[in-house]
Amino acid sequence: MNRTYLDWNATAPLRPEAREAMLSATEIVGNPSSVHAEGRAAKSALERAREDVAAALGAEGADVIFTSGATESAALVLQGRDLACAGVEHAAVLAWVRPELAVDAAGIVTVPDPARATLQLANPETGVIQDLPHGLAVSDMTQAFGKIPFAFNWLGIEAGFVSAHKLGGPRGIGALVVKRGTEIEARLKGGGQEQGRRAGTENLIGIMGFAAAARAAQADLDRGIPEKMAEIRDSLMAALESQTEMVTFPGRESRRLPNTLSILTPGWRGETQVMQMDLAGFAVSAGSACSSGKVRPSSVLTAMGIAAEWAGDAIRVSIGPTTDGRDVVRFADAWLAAHARWRQRNDTRETAGRV
Amino acid sequence: MNRTYLDWNATAPLRPEAREAMLSATEIVGNPSSVHAEGRAAKSALERAREDVAAALGAEGADVIFTSGATESAALVLQGRDLACAGVEHAAVLAWVRPELAVDAAGIVTVPDPARATLQLANPETGVIQDLPHGLAVSDMTQAFGKIPFAFNWLGIEAGFVSAHKLGGPRGIGALVVKRGTEIEARLKGGGQEQGRRAGTENLIGIMGFAAAARAAQADLDRGIPEKMAEIRDSLMAALESQTEMVTFPGRESRRLPNTLSILTPGWRGETQVMQMDLAGFAVSAGSACSSGKVRPSSVLTAMGIAAEWAGDAIRVSIGPTTDGRDVVRFADAWLAAHARWRQRNDTRETAGRV
Repeated sequence: MNRTYLDWNATAPLRPEAREAMLSATEIVGNPSSVHAEGRAAKSALERAREDVAAALGAEGADVIFTSGATESAALVLQGRDLACAGVEHAAVLAWVRPELAVDAAGIVTVPDPARATLQLANPETGVIQDLPHGLAVSDMTQAFGKIPFAFNWLGIEAGFVSAHKLGGPRGIGALVVKRGTEIEARLKGGGQEQGRRAGTENLIGIMGFAAAARAAQADLDRGIPEKMAEIRDSLMAALESQTEMVTFPGRESRRLPNTLSILTPGWRGETQVMQMDLAGFAVSAGSACSSGKVRPSSVLTAMGIAAEWAGDAIRVSIGPTTDGRDVVRFADAWLAAHARWRQRNDTRETAGRV
Repeated sequence: MNRTYLDWNATAPLRPEAREAMLSATEIVGNPSSVHAEGRAAKSALERAREDVAAALGAEGADVIFTSGATESAALVLQGRDLACAGVEHAAVLAWVRPELAVDAAGIVTVPDPARATLQLANPETGVIQDLPHGLAVSDMTQAFGKIPFAFNWLGIEAGFVSAHKLGGPRGIGALVVKRGTEIEARLKGGGQEQGRRAGTENLIGIMGFAAAARAAQADLDRGIPEKMAEIRDSLMAALESQTEMVTFPGRESRRLPNTLSILTPGWRGETQVMQMDLAGFAVSAGSACSSGKVRPSSVLTAMGIAAEWAGDAIRVSIGPTTDGRDVVRFADAWLAAHARWRQRNDTRETAGRV
């Protein structure tokens, strides 16, 4: 069966540029810590990739520390610190920081004390973009990186982190970026890699794939791909709301990622929708994918003030640079057909109840 | 210039089987935590790879937890525990465990209380293989995996860890293996991946490369490759000691990995030897590569009772399944020539001193 992948925020398909870079990385034999020619060649490839990722982040001159992904980056920079965050943060942040900051109905977070807060740049479920306050301690930039232009150096924040696989790099590689020389207590110890902040032989194939994907994502930004994605996303939103009054789009009143649409249909379980769309050939998700298949009411939506009763009734459609407008038209048709069947069942039940 | 890579214990060249598996993994789009068809396909590939790694480890039925490498595995299983180890352990172990166990001159460790100890299966510098006592808490099996046959389930130990890149898999992926159901406190938190023991989207390309490399390494073991490597290694040892009486081979009286030779020439710095061999086209190392280019007296050799004064005067030659006997003959010639020049300089200095 033809499949249409509309779950790019869970993980993006590998970009061809990343695949090529990884292939050429397989030819590099040495360990970057070795002093011989093979080791120096590996080290040099590693440092070129680091510069590419720094440039894509607008973080030239800052320290880019490669990790195994955003989850490790979050642990590295958040563990043991006394920071505040909001309930819209990713579980990898909530694991270390208590959610005590206010979120309004549009998904916007108030940060009274930036130097003691962590705030995501964009939300994975709704796509809502935050204005990061100057002097912010930490930002989870995972979903924003490659989808909207920003420069770490211009944001005036202390630290940020990202993951390669959200922008078309491989899974299992990410980075923490900090102002040059920031003290970071290593969590993985034993070797002097990453300036003593993260021990372990470097994942060179992953790192080179990451760098190539970051470069390609920046090129996409430059040639207007986000605007194209926003058009497609908005056409989906228009198609759905023109056909049913039972749907809302959490976060729509805020500035959002161009590729993300949260669709809330009170009373229709997101899990059910995901399964029905899967059978119809479309991959979408109910909330974030990171909880190993478990579907719970979205903590992002409850933080925005949506009743817990309805917070499990949303799905997320997230598209990518290669998503075609027609994919989304077909999705809208399939979703609206399923939606009509659901309403019919509900009507029948209500009629039956009245008899 | 033709290069000869004799530093397989630092990192092994990627096996063609691993490269193929990684290429096919690049086609798998989904996040293993997603419930749709793409996610389920990724999950199924992940679990097949886990079974392959378990089988190669002789750990069928045990829990294999994928990590970003041996360093992370060590942190995951050793941090916060009150275990003993010996000074011959890798820095990733010594970061968490005090070296208080006795080591004899042959490199063999005495373990009075196995349930409260961590002991490597094989040493990265000397190749010395330990007899793991039944009931041992943890073993670093990184250098042994794929080079000698063993079965985790037969060893009767609680936990072990390995890294893919030492046996021809990619860098940046490894595993911790524990008896089924062993409680492990997650260090990376936020998602339910790896049975709640290691959060973060799985490095599927790396994991599939790891599984393919582990399978290929097991096939090598079955067809006698270790015996072939031992022959080549022993021929090198014989060639060197037939030409100079100034060389010793730490650990030679013990059972060793078939591919590893530690060569100690008191008075001739290992670092100097590595540079001279590098210029002559051979990649070897002075001690373990994991300290980011820094060369210190080997703590492995000092733990074996070699004077600190000489413990920086060793190099390690480590070969692989594709190393040819002639490579090693050429290395012996180059090393002996450099050795002769070094002796001549020393003789000249001594003569000069006497005048």
